[in-house]
Amino acid sequence: MSLSVSVKNALPFADGSEIMSEIAAAHDTLLSGSGRGNDFLGWVRLPFDYDKEEFKRVKAAAKKIREQSDLLIVIGIGGSYLGARAAIEYISSPNYNMFRKDGTPMIVFAGNSISSDQAQEIIDLTSGMDFSVNVISKSGTTTEPAISFRIFKALCEQRYGAAAKDRIFATTDAARGALKTLADAAGYECFVIPDNVGGRFSVLTPVGLLPIAVAGIDIDSIMQGAADMASKLHVPGEDNPAWQYAAARNALYRKGYTTEIIAAYEPRFRYMGEWWKQLYGESEGKELKGIFPASVDLTADLHSMGQYIQQGLRNIFETVVGFESFRTNVTVPDGDKLDGLDFLVGRPLSEINDMAAKGTALAHVDGGVPNLSVTVEKADAYSFGELVYFFEFACGLSGYTLGVNPFDQPGVEAYKKNMFALIGKPGYEDMRKALLERL
Amino acid sequence: MSLSVSVKNALPFADGSEIMSEIAAAHDTLLSGSGRGNDFLGWVRLPFDYDKEEFKRVKAAAKKIREQSDLLIVIGIGGSYLGARAAIEYISSPNYNMFRKDGTPMIVFAGNSISSDQAQEIIDLTSGMDFSVNVISKSGTTTEPAISFRIFKALCEQRYGAAAKDRIFATTDAARGALKTLADAAGYECFVIPDNVGGRFSVLTPVGLLPIAVAGIDIDSIMQGAADMASKLHVPGEDNPAWQYAAARNALYRKGYTTEIIAAYEPRFRYMGEWWKQLYGESEGKELKGIFPASVDLTADLHSMGQYIQQGLRNIFETVVGFESFRTNVTVPDGDKLDGLDFLVGRPLSEINDMAAKGTALAHVDGGVPNLSVTVEKADAYSFGELVYFFEFACGLSGYTLGVNPFDQPGVEAYKKNMFALIGKPGYEDMRKALLERL
Repeated sequence: MSLSVSVKNALPFADGSEIMSEIAAAHDTLLSGSGRGNDFLGWVRLPFDYDKEEFKRVKAAAKKIREQSDLLIVIGIGGSYLGARAAIEYISSPNYNMFRKDGTPMIVFAGNSISSDQAQEIIDLTSGMDFSVNVISKSGTTTEPAISFRIFKALCEQRYGAAAKDRIFATTDAARGALKTLADAAGYECFVIPDNVGGRFSVLTPVGLLPIAVAGIDIDSIMQGAADMASKLHVPGEDNPAWQYAAARNALYRKGYTTEIIAAYEPRFRYMGEWWKQLYGESEGKELKGIFPASVDLTADLHSMGQYIQQGLRNIFETVVGFESFRTNVTVPDGDKLDGLDFLVGRPLSEINDMAAKGTALAHVDGGVPNLSVTVEKADAYSFGELVYFFEFACGLSGYTLGVNPFDQPGVEAYKKNMFALIGKPGYEDMRKALLERL
Repeated sequence: MSLSVSVKNALPFADGSEIMSEIAAAHDTLLSGSGRGNDFLGWVRLPFDYDKEEFKRVKAAAKKIREQSDLLIVIGIGGSYLGARAAIEYISSPNYNMFRKDGTPMIVFAGNSISSDQAQEIIDLTSGMDFSVNVISKSGTTTEPAISFRIFKALCEQRYGAAAKDRIFATTDAARGALKTLADAAGYECFVIPDNVGGRFSVLTPVGLLPIAVAGIDIDSIMQGAADMASKLHVPGEDNPAWQYAAARNALYRKGYTTEIIAAYEPRFRYMGEWWKQLYGESEGKELKGIFPASVDLTADLHSMGQYIQQGLRNIFETVVGFESFRTNVTVPDGDKLDGLDFLVGRPLSEINDMAAKGTALAHVDGGVPNLSVTVEKADAYSFGELVYFFEFACGLSGYTLGVNPFDQPGVEAYKKNMFALIGKPGYEDMRKALLERL
């Protein structure tokens, strides 16, 4: 079964079919490349047009990293972090580092904060483990990964001397920038972040693919899932799943449902939720508008956020990602009947989980929360590719329908400037003075 | 330094001092026990009035679990899950299972979903490891933990035979319920969930304290932090930090800031954020009102949610938890100056992180996002106790000010009933028929 969308449980609240003409226009704008941000549309045909030679190099590098390392330190932030982590948790395990098999190395993500404690933990982890480093940064000057790269480059050189260069892999600009210059001078193997693919759309480039491949995941299957999805979604029509999703959520937004909660009933989806939040939040949250993206892990969070969802302020809707089949088949064992669950003995957890999902959707609808659902066959590499492309394409449609440029992120600079000024970066002296007066 | 609150960066948007009389009234209602939900106020004096003998038994059981186990499986959901996980991540490490020291066992949380994959992973983990089980459930009939307990009880009995009873620890009702009855019959050591302490307020009872103590954390220090905080917060006054926080967030809510984002600049805070979301969401999200609770991990999420926060829909405010001192002291090393960071060489990451936090707060205020801050001395057991009590007390004040019963959760039953009906629980036949027609 290919990915499908159901908007049935949103219809009592808002009818996306009323704005299908706008979605159709957005579709044309997106595929013709005639809209805002059209210099960042490289992701649209990426599942067909990716660099096959580089793809082979990614696999070869992953093999080399697996052979030479007990630990891979992946340095990146935002779009250079969330996609790979989401893939590894979703396809392999949310506890990959506890359960990894077949000799794949531990994989830790660094440079996604300025926390000293986080850096120290990873430094401690390297002692006694052979490690490699994958540094991911278009420019090489983003503060968090740049600080982290200084730390782990130094550690790698202390440990391995001249051979450090065979343990550092740079995913960066094809030709320009601090990291590219440094990598070429040092002789690191380099992979390319294409100019026309923004960070949050980059998981199907080496940004995501190298760490994902190191985890032993079949990246061909990911690309196949994305390509199959792209083939379907490029065909215009009201039954296009991306049209349905984009139309429903925009229709809901216009009716005052301004927060979207993404949910799944499998813990392995958690970082897919984080990846999705960046994709939608960063694409739509601008010009003082956009749907606020949130996430929950169910059924866990039915016992924390469930009360709010059921009976709180009615400006929320939810999008639930579900599965048709499952990787394991644990059943309810015999036990003491006092717990009232004897009627479940022998039944698969996946079946009970599915009833929880269906029952929850109806309970939330009855409570005034519109419910969208996205269903894939199984949580695996192929559906990861499908989901990535589906959410990306629907995001492009959604952003154009909202009337923003879905491919820029002008607001991300604001905190950086203030931070640079406060820590005394040369050139920011006047700003520093003004900010210090406000502290 | 004790916990402090600053509302300075919220004042341009809403002035909490205008509703201090309401907060004062809520304070009286809370401490006099005269308000709605007053049969669930056991948490108010818990840091002073807890059962000292049972506290000793918690420590002894933790020691026994450490000695006999490589792995502790903690079975619980909602308030029987998030508090212990939050404490272990915040006080020990967000990667506790990778970095545990001094012979403490691996600790995994089960029964917080109906995921077959999650259950299977933990089943796999037990092979080759000696394990103990801590099952936490007031009634013993909540579906998720009850299914999980059937699984791991059976596994424990298969492995250890009659000695299984020395490896199973039940945290449950003092006298009634399925789990208490079963535990007494089997001879499990039991710990008490007090009748007058709701799940989301229970982390300072054995619900949280037993798993926390197993992780080697000083639970006396936690209780001391909570007691010191309670002594301060019980004194009425406009400089009471809980008054300031409750007043500011209610004032903001009335001005249309209906989503609160909790944030910290340390990854160890992540599950404190999840715990906080349950505390506030479940306490306030009812009667079609309440602030929607969300969370971000910074600076990571400045590169994902940062764009939305800076320039999206202006119905959000943020509460940032910060620290005065840090546990590690990593500094920026020498490196290639191309990254533009040479001016940072030798400076502590904690200092740069602090400037990021201060700069971000001002950037967000300039972008129209009110900013509240809560500061503690250091991320440790003592400040965990402070933060828990602070957020609990402020939550009580907030809920009464909002005009709801902060101590019930009537909406949590809705999904359970639908789930029971759909999976065919005896007695739900009519409801099942009605629901099936809607699927």
